[in-house]
Amino acid sequence: MKQNRLNNILREMSNTNLNQMILTSPAAIFYLTGKWIESGERLLALYINTNGDKKLVINELFPIHEDLGLDLVWYNDTQDPIVALCDIIDKSKTLGIDKNWQAHFLIRLMEKGAATAFVNGSPIIDKARTIKDAEEIELMRKASAINDKVIGRAVERFSKDKTEKALSNILGELYEEERTQGFSFTPIVAYGANGADPHHETDLSLPAIGDSIIVDTGCRNEFYCSDMTRTFFYGEPSEEARKVYNIVLEANLAGISKVKPGTRFCDIDKAARDVIEGYGYGKYFTHRTGHSIGIEVHDFGDVSSVNKEEVKPGMIFSIEPGIYLQGKVGVRIEDLVLVTEDGCEVLNNYSKELRVLK
Amino acid sequence: MKQNRLNNILREMSNTNLNQMILTSPAAIFYLTGKWIESGERLLALYINTNGDKKLVINELFPIHEDLGLDLVWYNDTQDPIVALCDIIDKSKTLGIDKNWQAHFLIRLMEKGAATAFVNGSPIIDKARTIKDAEEIELMRKASAINDKVIGRAVERFSKDKTEKALSNILGELYEEERTQGFSFTPIVAYGANGADPHHETDLSLPAIGDSIIVDTGCRNEFYCSDMTRTFFYGEPSEEARKVYNIVLEANLAGISKVKPGTRFCDIDKAARDVIEGYGYGKYFTHRTGHSIGIEVHDFGDVSSVNKEEVKPGMIFSIEPGIYLQGKVGVRIEDLVLVTEDGCEVLNNYSKELRVLK
Repeated sequence: MKQNRLNNILREMSNTNLNQMILTSPAAIFYLTGKWIESGERLLALYINTNGDKKLVINELFPIHEDLGLDLVWYNDTQDPIVALCDIIDKSKTLGIDKNWQAHFLIRLMEKGAATAFVNGSPIIDKARTIKDAEEIELMRKASAINDKVIGRAVERFSKDKTEKALSNILGELYEEERTQGFSFTPIVAYGANGADPHHETDLSLPAIGDSIIVDTGCRNEFYCSDMTRTFFYGEPSEEARKVYNIVLEANLAGISKVKPGTRFCDIDKAARDVIEGYGYGKYFTHRTGHSIGIEVHDFGDVSSVNKEEVKPGMIFSIEPGIYLQGKVGVRIEDLVLVTEDGCEVLNNYSKELRVLK
Repeated sequence: MKQNRLNNILREMSNTNLNQMILTSPAAIFYLTGKWIESGERLLALYINTNGDKKLVINELFPIHEDLGLDLVWYNDTQDPIVALCDIIDKSKTLGIDKNWQAHFLIRLMEKGAATAFVNGSPIIDKARTIKDAEEIELMRKASAINDKVIGRAVERFSKDKTEKALSNILGELYEEERTQGFSFTPIVAYGANGADPHHETDLSLPAIGDSIIVDTGCRNEFYCSDMTRTFFYGEPSEEARKVYNIVLEANLAGISKVKPGTRFCDIDKAARDVIEGYGYGKYFTHRTGHSIGIEVHDFGDVSSVNKEEVKPGMIFSIEPGIYLQGKVGVRIEDLVLVTEDGCEVLNNYSKELRVLK
């Protein structure tokens, strides 16, 4: 068990009068145990209690050879794991439930009267996970360094006969060569007007002279995610495209310059958005400015106008303003930033200068 | 809406006194609407009622341009979709819930007293989906025909310098060339002893002379899945490996020959298992004989010793016996079969003769 992380969670549970909860998503279990287990349709549940109990109910099909520092409660396909869970849970108290647990398990647990009430316990974990500890920060730096390297190498292999899909496949191969766990999400490679269509899926389009080339990609490395966007051009961009690029870059830098402890997420969103609105392109910046990232590419917490929370040291999120002119051009520039004691560290070092590919 | 499928579901709901339910998994919604929608963390729910109501609660981020033959209830990120759902649900009755719905939505629906009781409604859909209609059968044939073709072309590109991962990447490229939606599951390519290790993940291993080569792969095409396994050898197999191959092939054929309406799944499992046990290899056949397949690669229903259900015309499932000798060799041969009025149609036509690659 990652004891410090568990202690944080248990403290927060005590503060909110929640004595016990079960975590069932691979990411949440990994966060507390350091072990990634995907059990598919089979029940997997980490039970924790403020009295110190910690037990993992797990199917024998997923053997664990190391000592995780908790009790393992094994079951097989002829046994009912809900019964095993009921034996563990304190029936006289409320039980926190993982937000993404499959409904059919929850329904059965309720039918068995396993607890006095059932509440969504995930906000406690999600909130704790927004603050990365030293080990996580190191892993996030590593994943982004690989991403910098891979995007650089992929762009060198761009040529006019490469479809969006071909360029995206090159990214996949490079992540493999780097021995990562592969993409952290389905990458976006979008040429020209495709980059302005929010529903475009990377396809067999070829680039035309003057096209913008959005490359939005990331890898998962040692279970932590990277995510970066750069926009290139194939041949000389139009005057308008060049202008849009510079505005988005200015917005990206304005967002980043705002990041320090005490600033609210909505202020960071506003800093980036103000730049784009100032140039009259406000309605073409159609999404939030960013999202938290860590074990999941979209961790809890948005950089958006509605998030009034203050950022804190250890938080990592994206700053990714964009301008999308339908039928013409799309530009987005995204970096991950780590909040430090007095500002932030940008995890991506790949150049943001406008670059024209041949 | 796929009206015949909906009628079947509503009839079965009436039979079990369930008036209303919500379906939330992309596969179940696709089954009834013909539309595949992935809404990620955002609520998506198809509400159906035996009184004829059919409504889809959906976020504006996922625009629908065609007429699905049902009412669309739109919400955006500033609105609470649970409130929209509550307005639709008949509070005086029980509500069926999709087995995989995220627990936090269900908890909120319960807190709002949206129904008198909440039950797992999925078994009704899952059972209906085991019997494929004419349209589905055609799509399943098509997906398997592509799989036959791709596995054939991939094997021609095998050479001793191809790692497991390289061969698996070739499969992926070929599925792309065939304009499918890609793999229906993470493929298994396993050389020699790797093929006997149930926890082996396709890696950078190279083949050694005499190795078995398990290729377990499938694609998703027009939303329907294929899944086939063939075992080849790199260079002349040992006498034992050759023997094992022939036993597995005999078991595969014995399982298939048993498939006709009225036979129970467990009888099919037994037919395949008996062959392997007869040769004294019973304990090396470590898994069930097969699984249903359709919109999902593992649809509801196993070909296993515990499934006493009878097979019916229109069902499609795999027959995939195997023998795994730890540290030595793994052999598995898998076909998909469609139950017909008087027997079955094997959907895979790729040869099962023992083949030695160079």
